[in-house]
Amino acid sequence: MSTSECQDAMRSLQVSLGERSYPIHIGPGLLGDSRWIAPHLAGRQVLVVTNETVAPLYLARLREGLPEGLEVRELVLPDGEATKTLEHVSRIWDALLEAGFNRRCTLIALGGGVIGDMVGFAAACYQRGVAFIQVPTTLLSQVDSSVGGKTGVNHPRGKNMIGAFWQPRAVLIDTDTLATLPPRELSAGLAEVIKYGLIRDAGFLAWLEAEIPTLRELDAAALTQAIERSCAIKAEIVAEDETEQGVRALLNLGHTFGHAIEAHQGYGNWLHGEAVGAGMLMAAELSHRLGWLSDADVARARRLIEEAGLPLTAPGEMDVKAFLDLMRLDKKNIDSRLRLILLRRLGDARVHDETPPALLEELLDTFPRC
Amino acid sequence: MSTSECQDAMRSLQVSLGERSYPIHIGPGLLGDSRWIAPHLAGRQVLVVTNETVAPLYLARLREGLPEGLEVRELVLPDGEATKTLEHVSRIWDALLEAGFNRRCTLIALGGGVIGDMVGFAAACYQRGVAFIQVPTTLLSQVDSSVGGKTGVNHPRGKNMIGAFWQPRAVLIDTDTLATLPPRELSAGLAEVIKYGLIRDAGFLAWLEAEIPTLRELDAAALTQAIERSCAIKAEIVAEDETEQGVRALLNLGHTFGHAIEAHQGYGNWLHGEAVGAGMLMAAELSHRLGWLSDADVARARRLIEEAGLPLTAPGEMDVKAFLDLMRLDKKNIDSRLRLILLRRLGDARVHDETPPALLEELLDTFPRC
Repeated sequence: MSTSECQDAMRSLQVSLGERSYPIHIGPGLLGDSRWIAPHLAGRQVLVVTNETVAPLYLARLREGLPEGLEVRELVLPDGEATKTLEHVSRIWDALLEAGFNRRCTLIALGGGVIGDMVGFAAACYQRGVAFIQVPTTLLSQVDSSVGGKTGVNHPRGKNMIGAFWQPRAVLIDTDTLATLPPRELSAGLAEVIKYGLIRDAGFLAWLEAEIPTLRELDAAALTQAIERSCAIKAEIVAEDETEQGVRALLNLGHTFGHAIEAHQGYGNWLHGEAVGAGMLMAAELSHRLGWLSDADVARARRLIEEAGLPLTAPGEMDVKAFLDLMRLDKKNIDSRLRLILLRRLGDARVHDETPPALLEELLDTFPRC
Repeated sequence: MSTSECQDAMRSLQVSLGERSYPIHIGPGLLGDSRWIAPHLAGRQVLVVTNETVAPLYLARLREGLPEGLEVRELVLPDGEATKTLEHVSRIWDALLEAGFNRRCTLIALGGGVIGDMVGFAAACYQRGVAFIQVPTTLLSQVDSSVGGKTGVNHPRGKNMIGAFWQPRAVLIDTDTLATLPPRELSAGLAEVIKYGLIRDAGFLAWLEAEIPTLRELDAAALTQAIERSCAIKAEIVAEDETEQGVRALLNLGHTFGHAIEAHQGYGNWLHGEAVGAGMLMAAELSHRLGWLSDADVARARRLIEEAGLPLTAPGEMDVKAFLDLMRLDKKNIDSRLRLILLRRLGDARVHDETPPALLEELLDTFPRC
């Protein structure tokens, strides 16, 4: 992974995955500028997939940034996590087949993580794999789901249960798109930003403690820096472990708890980042009970999560059994053993599958509810 | 790819794909013998997927061949090419999630190509990829779809349009299962066997001309030899080109015409091998019109296809336009160019994308109809 300054406010990283390596470009004004998209198109056939919220805001601008002479189709899906289903991915396949698109077509995902995950999965399976480009428009998708090649959809019995590893040709992050992001979604994105500090970079964590208010005020320079550092950490980890055999599991800090909350509440009622926010605090508390984090460490984590505008409590209706049943479905588990990501120190996460069940149950029992 | 004799009638090949290499074991009595399955299970959780035709014949025998102490579930789907849909793959995912199976589970595909393609695709996408073992029970699937990692389902607008490349952990071919195969399906399997001779091995083609009657009488030794040579040729080609960027396209001899026939007739009305049989003859005739094959070559191909019990004509209702419209959807096409596999000589196939349209239309117009 290398970082270079391309022009005034532009930053570029490279995710190193051999033949499947790809660039991430971050900066203002990318959408309308064909220099960033053109080199990554596989052929003349292009399908842009977006949602009803993003289409009126950015679809025209993206279209302006496409080179001439292409055969461009557009598909606008409904918005929201509840749409992340096989049925909606099927609509993408239907659109590709109706257009008669072949294996040299390119899919462009314009939107948040839901659009990115669905379009990536559609690309992974259309004619056994075609090109796709990520154009994430939410902070969460810019720092998380657009990097790493995880694609897929939810199932009534579990989140992201159906999917594939499939890498984009490029990720184009236009920071201008954050201007229209609702504050609640900005907070959800900050959850993942904080996660990178907690698992891998104590210096970044300290920077975030100082800059969280600035980030919430949408300061462009601070956002660019936060996105760049987040993508760099994620790219580094993904390059080490593309298919989640080892270190990549660390990226799931807060996610085993968080996925349980999302599954229990019905996808889309809690934002993913909100569930991860509460989940990270649960992981920090459990790390404290294991003797890994001090009271002061947990207090720092809690304060940062709170300042980011994220929940510090779990849903009132979720009892211990509800948590345990849903957590057992987690993809990280090996056979019947519960595998968690916990914090050895702030800035240093570990995969842990030897948490005493009583300790976990005690945490789940006493963790505050809303 | 290497071949070795394991015991009296057992043959084993290795498909060489780096980390994804896997063995193919061929011989009688494999199903009930746990030595062949046990080494390839990823963990304790096993889902066996089969169909209503195969279940009463071989499911109990497969179960006997599984080691003790496993958590085994079974799913029996309807039979036939018409069931090769996303809806039926979803039923496999539902079964896995209902059982609470994690990423260390193993899927076993017991049946023909339809079961193999669906189970492989289900394995490719369940939790972004789990292990699967192919136990093909038809000649077609033994020599074709069980080798090479192509998985997927049909779409109303085209065959195999949705899928993934996903390699099995092992392919176990129990030749005893051919005893219950209907003659029409045996012929369909022979179409693919003949294909290997036509595209790559003139010596094997000559052997087939002598042995076709023996094969149709289900002579075990001849069948084992035909399966082994077919798998060896396919394994060799797949090892050279896992994701069909080049030489692997040769395996599609007769398939562009054949897929058009299948799509036009509705999947399952013509058997895949029957459509490929007629399609190979169309490819041979077109090769003759290009000046590549002699009259005598085409006559040899026609005689072998006929002796295998395969159709020598296309469906009466398919006019030139119907063929062209469906052939244009073929995955081998680059942009709007029609790409065909044709025969430079018997035993030597070529990818050809410069067939003069008039020549193709003339062939489609004059090729006999039933």
